[in-house]
Amino acid sequence: MKLYESPSPNARRVHIFMAEKGVDCERVPVDIRAGENLTPEYLAKNPGGRVPVLELDDGTFLSESVAICRYLEGIHPEPNLFGNDPLSCAQVEMWQRRVELNLFFEIAMAFRNITGFFKDRETCVPEWGRVCADKAAKNLTWFDQRLCESQYLAGTSFSIADITLAVALDFAEMFKVVELPALENVGRWKAEVDQRPSMSAG
Amino acid sequence: MKLYESPSPNARRVHIFMAEKGVDCERVPVDIRAGENLTPEYLAKNPGGRVPVLELDDGTFLSESVAICRYLEGIHPEPNLFGNDPLSCAQVEMWQRRVELNLFFEIAMAFRNITGFFKDRETCVPEWGRVCADKAAKNLTWFDQRLCESQYLAGTSFSIADITLAVALDFAEMFKVVELPALENVGRWKAEVDQRPSMSAG
Repeated sequence: MKLYESPSPNARRVHIFMAEKGVDCERVPVDIRAGENLTPEYLAKNPGGRVPVLELDDGTFLSESVAICRYLEGIHPEPNLFGNDPLSCAQVEMWQRRVELNLFFEIAMAFRNITGFFKDRETCVPEWGRVCADKAAKNLTWFDQRLCESQYLAGTSFSIADITLAVALDFAEMFKVVELPALENVGRWKAEVDQRPSMSAG
Repeated sequence: MKLYESPSPNARRVHIFMAEKGVDCERVPVDIRAGENLTPEYLAKNPGGRVPVLELDDGTFLSESVAICRYLEGIHPEPNLFGNDPLSCAQVEMWQRRVELNLFFEIAMAFRNITGFFKDRETCVPEWGRVCADKAAKNLTWFDQRLCESQYLAGTSFSIADITLAVALDFAEMFKVVELPALENVGRWKAEVDQRPSMSAG
């Protein structure tokens, strides 16, 4: 397998997931600032032009970080990060989507629309970016309430939903576009999660 | 089981999924225009205040349409709609996310920001809505190219990704906020999918 990637929150989700599974593969850097992801050669791998992309040994390409992680879960089921029975699979999916839709994507939209990071290739609306930044800050309370009653987002086991939350928080912290409140339970959970060796996986 | 719901594209995704599985359950209407989804009683079921929500017989609540569908897939594995081996599961996830992120959510954001449907409870930015409408129209070409080479989005089997695409197209058609181009392969696929009895499930 080969992972085509550039430094990004989504690549980091895959790195942490792979480190939790104890698997690795060849890495191929893609320079997205120079538009290497928009060349015909790259678009043949992923018509959406996004990174990361996983190339399997038979030449099949998989894109979308969570789809890549789901494939890795299928071939390396332990430690389980997507749930292992109908209810736990649904609860991981629910918390993963809650974090993505209400925090991770809001922070990403704030970042892109406020900074104009990709303004050479997309229309930015700073006003929308500020709306997203406000929503992300407000929505964090929801996750704090959950982490008051539960060790991890989806229950007693660390899951891909926790990876998404940790990456979202570090992304907001790194770029300072979204000012998130300091909340007690999120803080306790983050300090614990930061101790996992996977969190510094590159 | 009970499904708390109001007429919406997400409720329709669950209806179609249940009809494909041949399962049904009690339905409880929630009046979102009147804010019934924002009452303390409802927020105890889903702190995000969204519909639909599935209540299991033991009183557990599941929200997020795709999480509800994944639970139903777990307890009723056939016909399979999420893939049945590591690669097909990853390919369904990839196409499901491509449709959601590049079409379904873009249409929803265009609708909410342009019409101000929920302006009593969220900040709308019409300029952003128009950006999303343009992106949705442009992105449809991607799905047309895929459906030129593949019977269904994720391959030779109908999957939840096809349900999401069909619901997105009907949503755009119904509200006229997003004008999608008429494309040959999407048209062929849609005419075929519309023949499935599940598509008229309520």
